[in-house]
Amino acid sequence: ALAAPAIAQEMPEITWRMTTSFPKSTEALHNTGIYLTNALAEATDGKFRIQHFAAGEIVGGLQAADAVMEGTVEAAHTVGYYYWGKDPAWAVGSAIPFSLNYRGMNAWNYAGGGVDLYNEFLAGHGLVGFPGGNTGVQMGGWYRKEINTVDDLKGLKFRVGGFAGYVLERLGVVPQQLAGGDIYPALEKGTLDAVEFTGPFDDEKLGFVKVAPYYYSPGFWEGAPTVHFFFSKEKFEALPKHYQAILRNCCRAADQEMLAIYDWNNPKALMRLVQEGAQLRTFSPEIMSAAFDAANEIYAEMAEKHEWFKKLWESITAFRSEHYTYTQLVDFQYDYYMMQLNGQKRL
Amino acid sequence: ALAAPAIAQEMPEITWRMTTSFPKSTEALHNTGIYLTNALAEATDGKFRIQHFAAGEIVGGLQAADAVMEGTVEAAHTVGYYYWGKDPAWAVGSAIPFSLNYRGMNAWNYAGGGVDLYNEFLAGHGLVGFPGGNTGVQMGGWYRKEINTVDDLKGLKFRVGGFAGYVLERLGVVPQQLAGGDIYPALEKGTLDAVEFTGPFDDEKLGFVKVAPYYYSPGFWEGAPTVHFFFSKEKFEALPKHYQAILRNCCRAADQEMLAIYDWNNPKALMRLVQEGAQLRTFSPEIMSAAFDAANEIYAEMAEKHEWFKKLWESITAFRSEHYTYTQLVDFQYDYYMMQLNGQKRL
Repeated sequence: ALAAPAIAQEMPEITWRMTTSFPKSTEALHNTGIYLTNALAEATDGKFRIQHFAAGEIVGGLQAADAVMEGTVEAAHTVGYYYWGKDPAWAVGSAIPFSLNYRGMNAWNYAGGGVDLYNEFLAGHGLVGFPGGNTGVQMGGWYRKEINTVDDLKGLKFRVGGFAGYVLERLGVVPQQLAGGDIYPALEKGTLDAVEFTGPFDDEKLGFVKVAPYYYSPGFWEGAPTVHFFFSKEKFEALPKHYQAILRNCCRAADQEMLAIYDWNNPKALMRLVQEGAQLRTFSPEIMSAAFDAANEIYAEMAEKHEWFKKLWESITAFRSEHYTYTQLVDFQYDYYMMQLNGQKRL
Repeated sequence: ALAAPAIAQEMPEITWRMTTSFPKSTEALHNTGIYLTNALAEATDGKFRIQHFAAGEIVGGLQAADAVMEGTVEAAHTVGYYYWGKDPAWAVGSAIPFSLNYRGMNAWNYAGGGVDLYNEFLAGHGLVGFPGGNTGVQMGGWYRKEINTVDDLKGLKFRVGGFAGYVLERLGVVPQQLAGGDIYPALEKGTLDAVEFTGPFDDEKLGFVKVAPYYYSPGFWEGAPTVHFFFSKEKFEALPKHYQAILRNCCRAADQEMLAIYDWNNPKALMRLVQEGAQLRTFSPEIMSAAFDAANEIYAEMAEKHEWFKKLWESITAFRSEHYTYTQLVDFQYDYYMMQLNGQKRL
């Protein structure tokens, strides 16, 4: 009996709650949270459990990180850029316009010190954060009319997320905030001109193809958004070391899982959308270039005022050019040839 | 004292041995095995340990999987295509020419049933396998002279891996097997015309740039080689369920880690190689097209004779075209624009 108390400590029973930013309808986002909680329960023989709550069940989707900071719950599955209004540094760890693609973010996060640097920032907010999913490049949204020039953006009533909306506003876009259920009727009536969401696998459930058929790529404001698991730093550090390690590994498995689910399902969903009438378009170089310049202007302003924005963004941009140079010389050479074979119907 | 024996079972002490295919000099490959063993020890509070052995310490690098099948060790860190001589199906789970890129392999493995299907095949050999790393697109090797046409390949004495060599042989290449230390002098003397290895981060340590400066991309026979952890199926299944789960999660973290390390280090290494005199070249469309046709001829022959090759390759090719169509329409649009900005020195 002597050793029993120590042995019993090996796998203590712990239950946490995790609030998320995602409703059940965004299956890949929502289910990656479930993937984490299942993986954690399996790895600890059911001893360390995190209860999963969809957006709105405890707090609203955009308050997920706040709920952890305020001590309401121990964990959140959310996206850093939702909190950019507090400090734009929040957004850099997830995605800002013209940042890295998935391979770049993955390299920066895990081999380039990105996870650690973002955690230095998060520590100031009482949080620990680990990447918990990626969507790959998102689509640029659904439009009632074709958008060819920067002039076409002037006055465009566009339902678009916070940080991206702030950049697009400089090009004359009028960002709109509408609750989920109001979007479709607004698009139908024309009180809204366009809406962006994520990619085909999520977008097809929303039916926008019927009222705003022009479907643009790429979503240059989301080249590879990193979704995060945020935990209370105090609660995380109080865990036994091996529970910390198990949780970190489960987050990492979940991180990779989400991308796999999107990459497997997006192609099929896009083909179905085209059959339903989606008109695929790409943003013109003129629009992309103007958006790039506007983003850089804003980043320079933000870097002056926000130390952590500057630190994180400089860490990413120090790698960005060499990453795309290498991509072009090596990985792109393979993909480009495979795409050519595909165009020739040889695949 | 009543409950003690059951509690003591929670985290039993287990020690395994893992032999690998990689010498210490191929840092990213070798260290990903170490990453796994460290992650596993941390996650089990040191109770479940795997001892890591570099290539040659227990068995040779190309006998790693055999050592598990024969019961010499419990685990191997290796690449499936090393064993293609037993059955070409082994290679499909890792990489064969003109297969998927990383995003495609990741989607197929984890969301498209690839891991499960490959494990059905591996079960016949007494193994369980989980992806344990990826290099991304590899380079196509170092050449003493420029290679422009299929004629230039005729009689080319090329040190190249087994499966790829078998395909290139149809184009007139004469694949060579040379031990590591013999390659450099053979290239210098001209008894060898070319050598392929992995990518810049590994290649720069070998110094081939001095004797064979033409450095070709892409390595179309390795679009995204999946490295694997293979375990004895019997031993894996005898583990407590939560140890199985922990080990699976650790493999998955290691899988993502290797890619991050390559993607972070390859760009820097390539730039150093260029400064040392590497002449970057890309294979001509003529060579790529002839290799694609030769590969398809061989795949048709293999599919007739080898049921598992057919099953695995059909599973991949059913996804391949839609994957590249989607990549071209969405992710490529982002990367292409970023590469343009980079070319204009705006990044």
